Amino acid sequence: MYSIVELQKVIAGELIKRNFSGTPTTLYEPIQYFLSIGGKRLRPVLTLLAADLFGASIEDSIPAALAVEVFHNFTLLHDDIMDEAPLRRGKETVHTKWNTNTAILAGDAMLIQAYQLLSESKPTQLPAILKTFNQMAQEVCEGQQLDMDFESITAVSEEAYIEMIRQKTSVLLGAALEIGAIIGNATPTDRASIYSFGVNMGIAFQLQDDILDVYGDPLKFGKQVGGDIIENKKTYLLIHALRLAETQAAQDLSNWLQATSFNAAEKVRAVKDIYDSLAIRPLAEEVKRNFAEKAYKALDAIDVTIDRKQVLKQFAQDLLVREY
Amino acid sequence: MYSIVELQKVIAGELIKRNFSGTPTTLYEPIQYFLSIGGKRLRPVLTLLAADLFGASIEDSIPAALAVEVFHNFTLLHDDIMDEAPLRRGKETVHTKWNTNTAILAGDAMLIQAYQLLSESKPTQLPAILKTFNQMAQEVCEGQQLDMDFESITAVSEEAYIEMIRQKTSVLLGAALEIGAIIGNATPTDRASIYSFGVNMGIAFQLQDDILDVYGDPLKFGKQVGGDIIENKKTYLLIHALRLAETQAAQDLSNWLQATSFNAAEKVRAVKDIYDSLAIRPLAEEVKRNFAEKAYKALDAIDVTIDRKQVLKQFAQDLLVREY
Repeated sequence: MYSIVELQKVIAGELIKRNFSGTPTTLYEPIQYFLSIGGKRLRPVLTLLAADLFGASIEDSIPAALAVEVFHNFTLLHDDIMDEAPLRRGKETVHTKWNTNTAILAGDAMLIQAYQLLSESKPTQLPAILKTFNQMAQEVCEGQQLDMDFESITAVSEEAYIEMIRQKTSVLLGAALEIGAIIGNATPTDRASIYSFGVNMGIAFQLQDDILDVYGDPLKFGKQVGGDIIENKKTYLLIHALRLAETQAAQDLSNWLQATSFNAAEKVRAVKDIYDSLAIRPLAEEVKRNFAEKAYKALDAIDVTIDRKQVLKQFAQDLLVREY
Repeated sequence: MYSIVELQKVIAGELIKRNFSGTPTTLYEPIQYFLSIGGKRLRPVLTLLAADLFGASIEDSIPAALAVEVFHNFTLLHDDIMDEAPLRRGKETVHTKWNTNTAILAGDAMLIQAYQLLSESKPTQLPAILKTFNQMAQEVCEGQQLDMDFESITAVSEEAYIEMIRQKTSVLLGAALEIGAIIGNATPTDRASIYSFGVNMGIAFQLQDDILDVYGDPLKFGKQVGGDIIENKKTYLLIHALRLAETQAAQDLSNWLQATSFNAAEKVRAVKDIYDSLAIRPLAEEVKRNFAEKAYKALDAIDVTIDRKQVLKQFAQDLLVREY
């Protein structure tokens, strides 16, 4: 068994070893830059943990794990263009440091590199790995489109929101784990269980992100507290507030959503007060807990001794109790 | 043996059958639209022709052929964003009809769909098909980046230009053919030969495109004659004119390239006169002929009876003698 920290180091080392250089440098430098600015490398670690869980060697799992990480970074790079985000992890985004055309093409090349890494898989496992990866990749695109669509829809249902975050962020965790399980020759049932563990953990994680945006400790939370409120982002909290608010609260919320000129701190405080008056936080916490429980149940169902599953359970717990 | 027209119909029918629909429609409608606005479907036809040449069935080759076509359209869709092109095949481009974010994401989803189609290949052939496809896809990105880089470089060498068009447009023809050959279980030598046939045919075709832009029959040429001259596009002709022009011609050419306000017809006429004075056309025709000959030689080398190769030879001849 390996620890998460050990495997993060393995991934960091392999990313450096692979280098991702090439000609023309105008194409490859932005890719190298983006892959170098960090992140916790949690998704490829999930692939390695799952492979290890089912008895495969870390060495055999590295190309697929790197494919997961390169794919994840491709989605971030293109999302940053679409969101016009100037910064990613505190550093300039590629379209800001270079330009949009370079960022589009660098992202395209990274998606292709992810498939190049996947194609290093054992021929006997390649069809199953590709199938899982392709399904996931398609859903991530669908989730991103839904997220953009929601910006111009007033009433998003709870079901539609959960489906959006499932596709946009959670299936990647599920697929990262399932690919590791394929490499470890897991049974179809165990593959389905570990996928379900990842997806439900991902949904719980995203709900927690929505909660922390409003209720996180400003000293620990990496992002601006209330950022989602300032941007009118359709989070789980806002969707429920829109559904539950009546009379004065509904009017106040509507006014804040339509306000074009406002004091940011005042808006955050006022919307938070509305959330509190509607008891949105405990509602969101409960839904988050339900998904976390589904995740733990799926993990329990995997036909491997409990002690070998401990590191994945710890992974989920660490992810789902953070306050920042 | 099948005719090109028959196979174009097969591809058109399969594209309709596959439909490419999905949810959310905001993601899939742009994809369906772009795949429906036509094109001659020559690249997937090449895959089918090569598969047929080596004795594989058309049915077995259709998913890979469609992957080639979907990939090609992905590159066009993203290139149109980068070139800010309002029209493609006389219809609105996706970023014009919808918006840039939709076009980026639709392109990403198409690239993933290409891989989904490829993954329908026979498991025994999948690793080889993926390897050929990935190598090609990476080179196409590199070629597109080089093409963008050339816009801001004054002196592009002949070698660099040929390498750019090899990557940007020709390797796709080579890979389309080689993938068909893999499906037909061709020998490595025959695979290399048919790839070489495609790449050299592609380079000759692009050189012809450069020539036709200036010397094409305005009544037959689909695009505006002289469009490359108006836009200062670094074509084979311009690169050689810049290399060969001396004294007055060099000064005149430099003036036209730097002119910000000019009469388009006058610029086209003047630059064409400079090309004529330097005998650029026969030079370009000769280089084109050399690549065409390399292509025919590679085709000759394939270990299949001449009569079975006739349709591919005819394909190349049709492509390389067009005047429009």
